[in-house]
Amino acid sequence: MYSTCNVQRDPSYNRWDRNDLREFEAIFNGNSSQMLQIAEDTDTYTTDWLKKYKAKSSHALVLRPSSTEQISAILKHCNSRKLAIVPQGGNTGLVGGSVPVFDEIVLSMSLMNRIESLDIVSGILVCEAGCILEHLDQYVSEHGYCMPLDLGAKGSCQIGGNVATNAGGLRYLRHGSLHGNVLGIEAVLADGTIVDTLSSMRKDNTGYDLKQLFIGSEGTLGVITKVAISTPTRFSSHNVAFLACQSFDAIQATFLSAKHHLGEILSAVEFLDRESLDMVLSQQIDARDPLEASNSPFYILIETAGSKDEHDREKLETFLTAVMEDGHVNDGIVAQDSIQAQKLFQIREDITLALSMRGCVYKYDVSLPIAEYYNLVHATRNRLGSTYEDVKVVGYGHLGDGNLHLNVSTIQHNDNVLSALEPFVFEWIAKYRGSISAEHGIGIHKPEYLHLSKSEHAIALMKLLKQTMDSNAILNPYKVLPKIRPDQ
Amino acid sequence: MYSTCNVQRDPSYNRWDRNDLREFEAIFNGNSSQMLQIAEDTDTYTTDWLKKYKAKSSHALVLRPSSTEQISAILKHCNSRKLAIVPQGGNTGLVGGSVPVFDEIVLSMSLMNRIESLDIVSGILVCEAGCILEHLDQYVSEHGYCMPLDLGAKGSCQIGGNVATNAGGLRYLRHGSLHGNVLGIEAVLADGTIVDTLSSMRKDNTGYDLKQLFIGSEGTLGVITKVAISTPTRFSSHNVAFLACQSFDAIQATFLSAKHHLGEILSAVEFLDRESLDMVLSQQIDARDPLEASNSPFYILIETAGSKDEHDREKLETFLTAVMEDGHVNDGIVAQDSIQAQKLFQIREDITLALSMRGCVYKYDVSLPIAEYYNLVHATRNRLGSTYEDVKVVGYGHLGDGNLHLNVSTIQHNDNVLSALEPFVFEWIAKYRGSISAEHGIGIHKPEYLHLSKSEHAIALMKLLKQTMDSNAILNPYKVLPKIRPDQ
Repeated sequence: MYSTCNVQRDPSYNRWDRNDLREFEAIFNGNSSQMLQIAEDTDTYTTDWLKKYKAKSSHALVLRPSSTEQISAILKHCNSRKLAIVPQGGNTGLVGGSVPVFDEIVLSMSLMNRIESLDIVSGILVCEAGCILEHLDQYVSEHGYCMPLDLGAKGSCQIGGNVATNAGGLRYLRHGSLHGNVLGIEAVLADGTIVDTLSSMRKDNTGYDLKQLFIGSEGTLGVITKVAISTPTRFSSHNVAFLACQSFDAIQATFLSAKHHLGEILSAVEFLDRESLDMVLSQQIDARDPLEASNSPFYILIETAGSKDEHDREKLETFLTAVMEDGHVNDGIVAQDSIQAQKLFQIREDITLALSMRGCVYKYDVSLPIAEYYNLVHATRNRLGSTYEDVKVVGYGHLGDGNLHLNVSTIQHNDNVLSALEPFVFEWIAKYRGSISAEHGIGIHKPEYLHLSKSEHAIALMKLLKQTMDSNAILNPYKVLPKIRPDQ
Repeated sequence: MYSTCNVQRDPSYNRWDRNDLREFEAIFNGNSSQMLQIAEDTDTYTTDWLKKYKAKSSHALVLRPSSTEQISAILKHCNSRKLAIVPQGGNTGLVGGSVPVFDEIVLSMSLMNRIESLDIVSGILVCEAGCILEHLDQYVSEHGYCMPLDLGAKGSCQIGGNVATNAGGLRYLRHGSLHGNVLGIEAVLADGTIVDTLSSMRKDNTGYDLKQLFIGSEGTLGVITKVAISTPTRFSSHNVAFLACQSFDAIQATFLSAKHHLGEILSAVEFLDRESLDMVLSQQIDARDPLEASNSPFYILIETAGSKDEHDREKLETFLTAVMEDGHVNDGIVAQDSIQAQKLFQIREDITLALSMRGCVYKYDVSLPIAEYYNLVHATRNRLGSTYEDVKVVGYGHLGDGNLHLNVSTIQHNDNVLSALEPFVFEWIAKYRGSISAEHGIGIHKPEYLHLSKSEHAIALMKLLKQTMDSNAILNPYKVLPKIRPDQ
C-alpha cells in the first residue's frame, strides 16, 4: 500500500520537455545509458524499497551523472528552468525522502562510485558519494580500519545518502555521529555552484563548518558529490551477552554498570521487551528463547569490541558477576563463539522482520530521555487499550543512544489505530523534549510534525537557510520542512 | 607587544552613548555590577591573555548578562542601534577573536554559569555557556564521567567559548570533535531571536542541524547561551610511553603500530622533534632528557586510557616489543607510576613555555596530511636558512590528529623573520590542502589568509550565511571572514 500524502504538486515548477532532454544529452556527451525514461528502467528509482512511497507521475526521468561537473551542469540547467530534482543514493530510506512525489527528476548517484584515496596512517578515506557502504567497509578493512557506521541496508545504501540523512545505525554508541566523523564534503548547490570543503584533515577551524549544513539535510540544501571520512581501527574481538531484567529500572542500572565495567570496549547496548521477543518467537519457526527458564519482561543485549579477546572476556565476566550480585539481572547468557553471538544478535535484528510477517506495522523511530524511554510504550498501550483485539505494541531499540523503536502491529491496516497513534505519539514525545525522528529523518512522512521537535524560531531559521541556498526550491521539494515552495 | 592589524574602524557602526547605557541599565534592573565602564574593571576584557591583542578605544563597555532573556534584549537593542558586540567567554583564545578591535561592546558570559542537569544514566550534561570547563569536568567526574575535551586553559576557559571556537585539545584523538559531542545549543541571533535547539538526545534527525552553525563560528553568527553535551565514561587507568625514532617514517610506522596494538585504549599520540626537546632542556633548569643515551631526532609520546590497568600495561608491553623488534623505535621509556607519567607529559607541555621564555615566538597551528607533516618544518628551516643567527624552528603537536604546531623562535621580534614566514607558511600549507588553522580558529589574525584553506565558493557561501543571519554585522565584526561589514 502506498502512503497517501496530502501534498499538492506545486504548479510553479516546470515539467521537463524535449529541449531539456537534449540539454541533458549534451551534458552526458550523448551517452544514453545515463538517462532513463522507460517505466521498466525507472520504476526502482521512483518507488521506495518498502513500497510505501511512489511518485505520482506517469512519466519519470532518471539522470545518472558520472562526475561532479555533470551534476553542476544539470543543476544549473534545472535551476534556470525551475525543474525540481530528487537526489538519490541507494534509495533505502524509510521516510520517502529519496523518491519523487510527483514528476521531479531523479538524480541518481550510482555512477559516482570511485574511491579516491585512503591514507594508511591516518585512516582517512576520500570517495565519491555513490560508493556503497559495504564496499567501503570491505576496502578499508584490508588496511585494519572500519567504516564508523553500520546499517542493515549496508549492501545497497550509499555513503552520500548516509551522510545526507545523517544515518545512525549499530556503531553509533562507539563511534558517534557522522557530524563528528565526516571531515569534508564536496557538494553542488542548487544553482550549480560546486562548494569544495573536501578537507581530509581531522582538525580544521577555518571559517564556518559548511559541510555540517549538508549532513542530515536530506538533499534539500545541496547534492553531496564527495566525502572525506575518518575511519576507526577495526577490532578483532567481539563478545555478546543477552541478559534478562525484571524492571526497566533494572535495565537502566545494568546499562550504567556496563558503562562502568566495560568502558572502552562497550560497543552496543540494545534493548527489547518481552513483546518484541514474543513477536520473533511467534513468527519464526526456528527462533528459540535463549533464556527460556526465566520469562522476563525486559531484555538487554550487550556487545563488546576490542583488540584482545582474553581481556574483553575478563571484563565481561566481572561485569556479569556485578549485575547478578546487585540483583539487576536475573538471568543471562554469554555467547561462547561467534556463531552463538550472531544468533543472539539475530533475535534483536529479526524483530523488524517478524513484525512485517505478522501484517501491518506503524513504525516510530524516536529519541527520549532514558527515564521516559519505556513510558512511551506504556502510554501507547494505555491509549490503544483493549479496543482492538489484534493490536500488539512492542518496544525495542538502541538503548545506549536513547533511541526507541516503538512499533504497533495489526493484522491489517486500520485507520482507527493510525488516528489513535498520530499525532498522539509525536505529541507525547514533544512533552518530554524527545525527538520524533532519531535516525530516520523527516522526508515526506513528518514535515507536518516537525514543530513538535523543533521550536518555531528554529524552523524559521531552517526555512531562511533553505531560501538563501536554494531560492527556487528545486532540491527535493515537499520534503523535510513544512510548506517551503517557490510561491511562498 | 600588541599586534597591529590593518583593519579600519567601520564608520557605519554607531558608538554607544548615555541613552544606550540607560537601556542596558533597565535590562539589568538597575544592577550596576552587570555593567563595567572603568578601565580598571574593563582592561581584562579588552586585552587578550597573551597580551597580543588590545582594543583600540579609550572607553570600553562590558555587559555581564545573567540570563538568555537579558542577552536577547541586549542584542535586540544593539541590532536596532547598529552597535557592534563581542561575545566573550574565558578570553583564553589565541587569535584575538574574543576582544574588541575598536569600541565594540563586550558581552561577557561569566555570570551565565549554572549547571542545569546531568543525566546519570546517559551522561548527558546541560549547562549555561559561562560554565568553566574544569568545573564541569569536576562535576561530571563525581558520576564517573569526563568532559570530552581537555585544554591547558581549562581552569578559565568557558564551555560556550570552547563550543564557539570548536576547541580541540588533548582528548580529541579519543573522543573526537565537538561537532559530534555537542547535542544541543541554545543561541541568541543578532536580532535578539532565541533559537532553542537544546536537544539532549544523542540522536535527533529533525530538520537541519542548526547547532552546527554556531560550533566554530567564533561568535559571528549568534551568541551561544546554553549547551547540551555528551560526556564519556571516565577512565581509571592511564599509561604513558616516551619513544625515540631515527626518522619521521619511523614515527609514522610507530603511530600505525600503536593504533593496531592499542586500539580502544589509545588516547593521545603526541610528537616532538629534537629541537623542541632541546628548547625545553635549555630553558628549564630542572628539565632532564628522559632518553639521554640516544640523542634522537624525533620523539613520540603515547598515552593509553582504559578501565583496567593490568590489561592496558599488557597491551602496551606487546606494542613496545613489536616496535622495538621492527626497528621503528630505537629507545624508549614507560612511566612506572602516575608521577613519572606526568613528568613525561610535562616535557611535551613545557615546549610552549620554554619558547616564550626564550623570547619572541611566531606560532602556527596547522593540519597537514601525515606524509607532509614534518616537511613543513624542513621547508621553514630551508626558507630561513642561516641568515638569522638566533632563529630556531621547532615542530611538535598532536600527531594523532595530523595537527602540527610549527613555532619559530627568535630572541627579539624581527620583522624580516615575520615577512619570511607569512604568507610563506600559509601558502605552503595550501599547496598540500592542509589547514591554516587546525584548532585555534581565525579570529582577527587570519581572515586575510582564509582563502588559502577554503575555496572561493565556500567563502562566498560563508559570507552569504553571515549576511542572512546578521544583516547588520553587529556580531564580532572584523573577525573570521575577510571584509564583511555593513557597508558591503
